[in-house]
Amino acid sequence: MHPDLSYCEAAKIEKVSHIRYSLRCSSCSCAYSSSDLLNLCECGKPLLVEYDLAALSRSASDDEKFEDAVRWIDAARSDMWRYAAVLPVDASEAVTLGEGWTPLFHLRRLGFRLKAADLWLKDEGRNPTDSFKARGLSVAVTMARKLGAKKLAIPSAGNAASALAAYAAAAGLEAHIFMPDDVPQSNFIECKAYGAQVILINGLISDCGRIIAERKQREGWFELSTLKEPYRIEGKKTMGYELAEQLKWTLPDAILYPCGGGVGLIGMWKAFAELEALGVIGSKRPRMIAVQASGCEPMTVAFERGAEECEYFNDAYTVASGLRVPKPLGDFLILRAVRESEGAVVSVSDEEMMDSGALLAQDEGIFAAPEGGACVAALAKLLASGFLKFSDRIVIYNTGSGLKYLEAYSSRFPRTASREQDKLGGLITPR
Amino acid sequence: MHPDLSYCEAAKIEKVSHIRYSLRCSSCSCAYSSSDLLNLCECGKPLLVEYDLAALSRSASDDEKFEDAVRWIDAARSDMWRYAAVLPVDASEAVTLGEGWTPLFHLRRLGFRLKAADLWLKDEGRNPTDSFKARGLSVAVTMARKLGAKKLAIPSAGNAASALAAYAAAAGLEAHIFMPDDVPQSNFIECKAYGAQVILINGLISDCGRIIAERKQREGWFELSTLKEPYRIEGKKTMGYELAEQLKWTLPDAILYPCGGGVGLIGMWKAFAELEALGVIGSKRPRMIAVQASGCEPMTVAFERGAEECEYFNDAYTVASGLRVPKPLGDFLILRAVRESEGAVVSVSDEEMMDSGALLAQDEGIFAAPEGGACVAALAKLLASGFLKFSDRIVIYNTGSGLKYLEAYSSRFPRTASREQDKLGGLITPR
Repeated sequence: MHPDLSYCEAAKIEKVSHIRYSLRCSSCSCAYSSSDLLNLCECGKPLLVEYDLAALSRSASDDEKFEDAVRWIDAARSDMWRYAAVLPVDASEAVTLGEGWTPLFHLRRLGFRLKAADLWLKDEGRNPTDSFKARGLSVAVTMARKLGAKKLAIPSAGNAASALAAYAAAAGLEAHIFMPDDVPQSNFIECKAYGAQVILINGLISDCGRIIAERKQREGWFELSTLKEPYRIEGKKTMGYELAEQLKWTLPDAILYPCGGGVGLIGMWKAFAELEALGVIGSKRPRMIAVQASGCEPMTVAFERGAEECEYFNDAYTVASGLRVPKPLGDFLILRAVRESEGAVVSVSDEEMMDSGALLAQDEGIFAAPEGGACVAALAKLLASGFLKFSDRIVIYNTGSGLKYLEAYSSRFPRTASREQDKLGGLITPR
Repeated sequence: MHPDLSYCEAAKIEKVSHIRYSLRCSSCSCAYSSSDLLNLCECGKPLLVEYDLAALSRSASDDEKFEDAVRWIDAARSDMWRYAAVLPVDASEAVTLGEGWTPLFHLRRLGFRLKAADLWLKDEGRNPTDSFKARGLSVAVTMARKLGAKKLAIPSAGNAASALAAYAAAAGLEAHIFMPDDVPQSNFIECKAYGAQVILINGLISDCGRIIAERKQREGWFELSTLKEPYRIEGKKTMGYELAEQLKWTLPDAILYPCGGGVGLIGMWKAFAELEALGVIGSKRPRMIAVQASGCEPMTVAFERGAEECEYFNDAYTVASGLRVPKPLGDFLILRAVRESEGAVVSVSDEEMMDSGALLAQDEGIFAAPEGGACVAALAKLLASGFLKFSDRIVIYNTGSGLKYLEAYSSRFPRTASREQDKLGGLITPR
């Protein structure tokens, strides 16, 4: 049998024994066995993976070269599984579509326009299924399959659904997907094409979550909602590892991250803590800036009130489907990271995020999700207020491609209907 | 000033002086200066880039290790500019969005279904703008800018338009884009978002090309139509370099490639020839199989007739927009490569390509363009006929993501309209 040649493995790496890990509650610190298929702690809060990092770390007294501190990275891989040593499973067991290792762009033209001298964008639209959700679902589906799950379920505002459908297909598992009935067509079509069972709900992601919670036991579904299992965050944290590596093991002055469920932000914060424990970076952290839509801003409200958790946000609405999360389960973790880093939570309107998304595309050739546009709009506000400075090294995360949000952009760029065929859903009639 | 940190450049590479090249007609062998902004040869046929490969090649009598034969590859780059030494310009001058170095997947489940034991797919949907067109337009826009062009124009069935718009934006150049008025919404929105001037024509790509030819001189546009300038093919050829590298410098028994303009196929054929001249591979070649849509099959007809060129195909129609090319300019080059490799040209129906696209998504978690589905359908036919064997190593190219073709997939996966908002173009009304 020939070896798997999916990636050119030019360099031989030192095989590091896979490190041990355990599961611990993010709130009450209860410990759990990592070999069970688990959702939440008994106290209702999320479980997080804790690694025995001592096996990989460089001690301060060693004379080892810095290169040894990162020897556990499989640099021959052009995907996030280069960090398998700090993930719960070997790359050889991964359900992978080559996710991660996304490009980090220096935004010269947009930076000039906004008066930000050192502006960068990490483009998560370049993942399988065109969003960063691929990272988390790759790890979560890998672990679910390994721990014996056969049927997976998810409530999703859009992109997580597409990612679950893709990775479930790649893994040979069933996927049961609940989405609001106004999800972008991209997500609907992806999920159907990948062979998932798709149920559209007249409601929000929270309604979808409630329905799954009610039915899953009877149906035998394992639920993969944000932070209701511990492994999606492990995939998302690799965004932090990559940023540090691509910036040559430094961190920027500020990171702007679109905050729906906020698990990408929490994941990166975890990654930075692990990198420090590994002796790769020091204690300096970027200001973590969570960006929300003004039409759904529970975190902004909580931040401004000095609260530790947020309230359910009523009548949530925004074209940025990924930000339409009225009460994120990880709210207390997001607020903790934002405050510890002296960051902020900022809201922008749909109009502002779409304007900024258009500028980003015109200036840089990057067609971002509204969530990415939201970060650009937030950046402009924070530069205007002086919270961020012209000379700061700033990194924006674009969490998905604009191709997942054609409806949102279509209102900005109307197309004259020359025939009936330009309506989505109709076959093009031959001439 | 800090260096461009867009990619982690962990390895220092031996700096190879950029090799010389010239332009030569593919038909009459006339030579041209490479420092002029050129379209076609005076005889009307395409110009191709010829490199002075001796500077890079390994001679048969050397005792050099094989690694030296590929020392000119910048292995630290996770994009196609790792091959800059055999491209017309240094990576430092490139207008790049990190295109290329796409994943090569081993299709175990689909291979089992089709009885193909060694089946692989190279997923070009993973490029900027979600199609392989990014490769060619990256090089072409780079060269156009370098040689002084300010305004670029293209006729396109869809994905080339999106790619030109993106790279023109990244380069700070104007883009003038002519597309049939039934192009997928994805392409229309991308081009508008990237700031291009977009003109929709009631006609086919050939009509769009005619209009540009008529207006370009007056408007001062440089035209970037397929094979009407010599550099798009240089970007596309990197698909061949990558395949060889990812298969550890071997080539498969067969390659199935969706053939609209066919420049990807011609480009790969050129890459293989260059790799042989460089002493990296031998003379063995894969069977090159061009896949067409039965609704637009000028190449299939020409192949079956034993012709050296094809006739204009009347009433061309297919949901695979990239295959709707009634008379490819490079027809004689495609047929030459197919015949020299003992390959074939095969047509499949729209129904077959969409069925196969759905199977690919369900079995492997890869959501392909109809063009990719067409290759799967063609493979099934060639296995059934015995032209390809169960044990053959076969590589399929998926040239774009299914996300660029939501209309085509929407007819297969209809969505019940619960409200007016599911029609593309309308804003979602807040609840």
